Amino acid sequence: MTGSPLERLLARLADANDLSKAATLLFWDQRVKMPPGGAEARAEALATVSRFAQERFIDDEVGRLLEELRGLEESSDYDSFEASLVRTTRRQYEKALRVPPELVGELRRAAALGLAAWGPAKEQSEFEQLRPQLETLVDLRRRYVECFPQPDETYDLLLDDYEPLMKTAEVREVFAELKRELVPLIDEIRDGADVDDSFLYGEFDPATQRRVALEILRAFGYSDDEWRLDDTPHPFMTTPGAGDIRLTTNFRNDLSALFATMHEFGHGVYEWGIDRSFARTPLHSGVSLAVHESQSRTWENLVGRSRAFWRWFYPRLQEAFSAQLESVDEEAYYRAVNKVQPSLIRIDADEATYNLHIILRFELEQDLIDGELAVVDLPEAWNARMEEYLGVAVPDDTRGVLQDMHWAAGSLGYFPTYALGNVISVQIWERALEDLGDLDERFERGDFGDLREWLREHLYVLGSKFTPQETIERVTGSRIDAKPYLRYLRRKLAPQPA
Amino acid sequence: MTGSPLERLLARLADANDLSKAATLLFWDQRVKMPPGGAEARAEALATVSRFAQERFIDDEVGRLLEELRGLEESSDYDSFEASLVRTTRRQYEKALRVPPELVGELRRAAALGLAAWGPAKEQSEFEQLRPQLETLVDLRRRYVECFPQPDETYDLLLDDYEPLMKTAEVREVFAELKRELVPLIDEIRDGADVDDSFLYGEFDPATQRRVALEILRAFGYSDDEWRLDDTPHPFMTTPGAGDIRLTTNFRNDLSALFATMHEFGHGVYEWGIDRSFARTPLHSGVSLAVHESQSRTWENLVGRSRAFWRWFYPRLQEAFSAQLESVDEEAYYRAVNKVQPSLIRIDADEATYNLHIILRFELEQDLIDGELAVVDLPEAWNARMEEYLGVAVPDDTRGVLQDMHWAAGSLGYFPTYALGNVISVQIWERALEDLGDLDERFERGDFGDLREWLREHLYVLGSKFTPQETIERVTGSRIDAKPYLRYLRRKLAPQPA
Repeated sequence: MTGSPLERLLARLADANDLSKAATLLFWDQRVKMPPGGAEARAEALATVSRFAQERFIDDEVGRLLEELRGLEESSDYDSFEASLVRTTRRQYEKALRVPPELVGELRRAAALGLAAWGPAKEQSEFEQLRPQLETLVDLRRRYVECFPQPDETYDLLLDDYEPLMKTAEVREVFAELKRELVPLIDEIRDGADVDDSFLYGEFDPATQRRVALEILRAFGYSDDEWRLDDTPHPFMTTPGAGDIRLTTNFRNDLSALFATMHEFGHGVYEWGIDRSFARTPLHSGVSLAVHESQSRTWENLVGRSRAFWRWFYPRLQEAFSAQLESVDEEAYYRAVNKVQPSLIRIDADEATYNLHIILRFELEQDLIDGELAVVDLPEAWNARMEEYLGVAVPDDTRGVLQDMHWAAGSLGYFPTYALGNVISVQIWERALEDLGDLDERFERGDFGDLREWLREHLYVLGSKFTPQETIERVTGSRIDAKPYLRYLRRKLAPQPA
Repeated sequence: MTGSPLERLLARLADANDLSKAATLLFWDQRVKMPPGGAEARAEALATVSRFAQERFIDDEVGRLLEELRGLEESSDYDSFEASLVRTTRRQYEKALRVPPELVGELRRAAALGLAAWGPAKEQSEFEQLRPQLETLVDLRRRYVECFPQPDETYDLLLDDYEPLMKTAEVREVFAELKRELVPLIDEIRDGADVDDSFLYGEFDPATQRRVALEILRAFGYSDDEWRLDDTPHPFMTTPGAGDIRLTTNFRNDLSALFATMHEFGHGVYEWGIDRSFARTPLHSGVSLAVHESQSRTWENLVGRSRAFWRWFYPRLQEAFSAQLESVDEEAYYRAVNKVQPSLIRIDADEATYNLHIILRFELEQDLIDGELAVVDLPEAWNARMEEYLGVAVPDDTRGVLQDMHWAAGSLGYFPTYALGNVISVQIWERALEDLGDLDERFERGDFGDLREWLREHLYVLGSKFTPQETIERVTGSRIDAKPYLRYLRRKLAPQPA
């Protein structure tokens, strides 16, 4: 192999990245297009491709090149592409080096088989159908954590896969503050409000929902040239390569898919906005899941559940679903989609109770990895905590422990990033407003370009040049801080003095 | 790596196969789902994944294991899985060993970029938009043939990729016989028949076409559990893994997609019927493209253009498109879909003139690889030969040299297998009829199971255990022979004595 050490490193990283992106497509296709008969072959393909990606990434040559490039890194500006690339790659390399490619492959295979089992299990509310796969996945995750020196808390190692460098203790602290403030706030709201949202549940033609969702997305920045929107049982976003952003959503017998679609757009636009010159390097990726969720929650909630947004869009929605909504005025609709009410399904939860769904999962995940909770006891533990935190009785596992696909996909440690994302979203939002001034007027006429461009320039473009914490501090000027988010919730949702 | 030499070989082959299947999905997705903005990243991913597949397959360890396994091969029955696996793998390995993985990757990248350019070029009838990619591809194919010792004819090496072990001279001989018999036959038919097929061209709602196509496919053996049917500009079949058969078709403003769909089903059912225990080995694949095409042409023509088939299906088609077909009776429809008439588009051609489209391409391909024809002169050469062989004037490149995606995908040497497939299809068909007796009555009631199962047991199940010629001889009892096909065409299409 010829070229400078930097060129040689880039070629290696491009290989590893291409293999990872092939795995990304294998995953997307499994969730969205693959006939069920392909599940076994797909699990093997995912295992093999992921194993090769890992092998290529932790190759000794990558280590040697990273050593050779210390000089370049030190002589380059900290913010430069070169220094950022070497720094970020070294951190990821040193971590990846500890994990045998075979284990990476086994985890990926088990995740694919878990996902294949999850669909039917959820549909039939049969936890037992998924239990063996979940047990395998928890065992594999235990083998994974054993690859590392014992941290303060075992869960730190899971969390680090989604939120690099963050510790469980920090999350616990943020969540304690959320819980302390939110539990009384939720009580307060429930006492003061009796909002009718019955018109949100009924027959909403999926093809019309899709048309409406695309109208919103196009105003946000979606284009057919670089994006797709598909239907799938559990919405997600993924990107099999630069210029190829895939949103998925789940059109059901209510209008919740509109919010799920805006949520996934937030993920998509973050990836879309990363500096294209980073393509095929470790920098061409959102920096962490919490920062990612800050953007999905921004577009879903700060934009999509705002009064100004619905001032623009409600007449169009009403026109599309005139039978269902003709007698519902804008204010009634706005209040309905912001109704605070403890409920069963995380992705449909209001902005306030949402965080309790996350805290519950965060706690159960710790118990699972620490061995304090057996997989077989998970449904019972779930239901008990739903009762305790949200006061709701879980009628079946479909609407309980089986509702999310994350655990079936082996993603233990992912959930806390959603609530952290809520917190970060408002920190970033407040900075954007300082620069842009009030956005309501622009939203009211369907103009989201200024917001998108501000976010792109200040956040998206950075990709993974810096650590998550550095990134948050560069954009917001401060560390992660729940206060702006709590202020926002109180201002938006608390009963106003008459 | 532990295990017996056979187990170790199987593990290596499974890796290479998984990587190839990932490339298969990357290709399918590019053609069917990918937003155009993803083209560049996709070309890189395809190049990298294909390069790794090749590297894994030609690894020294594979060579050592094949040597170690000579004993097992010789002591096992020729027909056994073990002997067939070692034999087939060794043949493929010795060929692959000559081709540097970098060249494999470059070819794949160029093919992906060629395909990305082909769509818009075809749409706009702008050969110039595709020319640079075609030039690159022809150059790369020349570099490819230089990896091998000089054969009798350079084209032999291209042909061998699709039709292993067959020589250009053999193809030429078969084609000479086809030309000798077909040119007068076509003249004879044209003089004797004036068939009205105008009702085939009009507005046929694509969604209804899809429903109708699926009804046919389900009767043939398609199930949602293991198959998909998608729309794409140029129909093809591919399988990203066992139990996952992907058909594509192109619903247009006529009913031709029904035949294209049955064609792709023939490819699909061949792959579907291979012994599942061969999965992730080189045996789990149709043995050659000519044998593959024999099956696509069987289901498209021998079944799909037969009187018995339409006796079953025409009433249903008529019901689905009553406005267009209510005044057309079954016989008129049957004659229309079998009308012999020189025309512009290969995939829509009748059974007799079809072969002239292939002979034209076969000749142009030889001229291209031998350097006797420059890419820039291709449209002119195409148009001249269309005039000469079929007597039709090509109005634009969309309906001329740009109609097929094969060359844009770097597939030089593929086309002859279509006409060879026609020939082989009737050889196999005659053997099936000997065992099954007349099938018309079964087709007339929509029963295709006996035929499918006969083909599965006698042909599909074999996968790549034997060479193409061995396979053909095992199924038909003879070498490739154009006579049965020519007899069939004459019997079916020639004007009958009054």
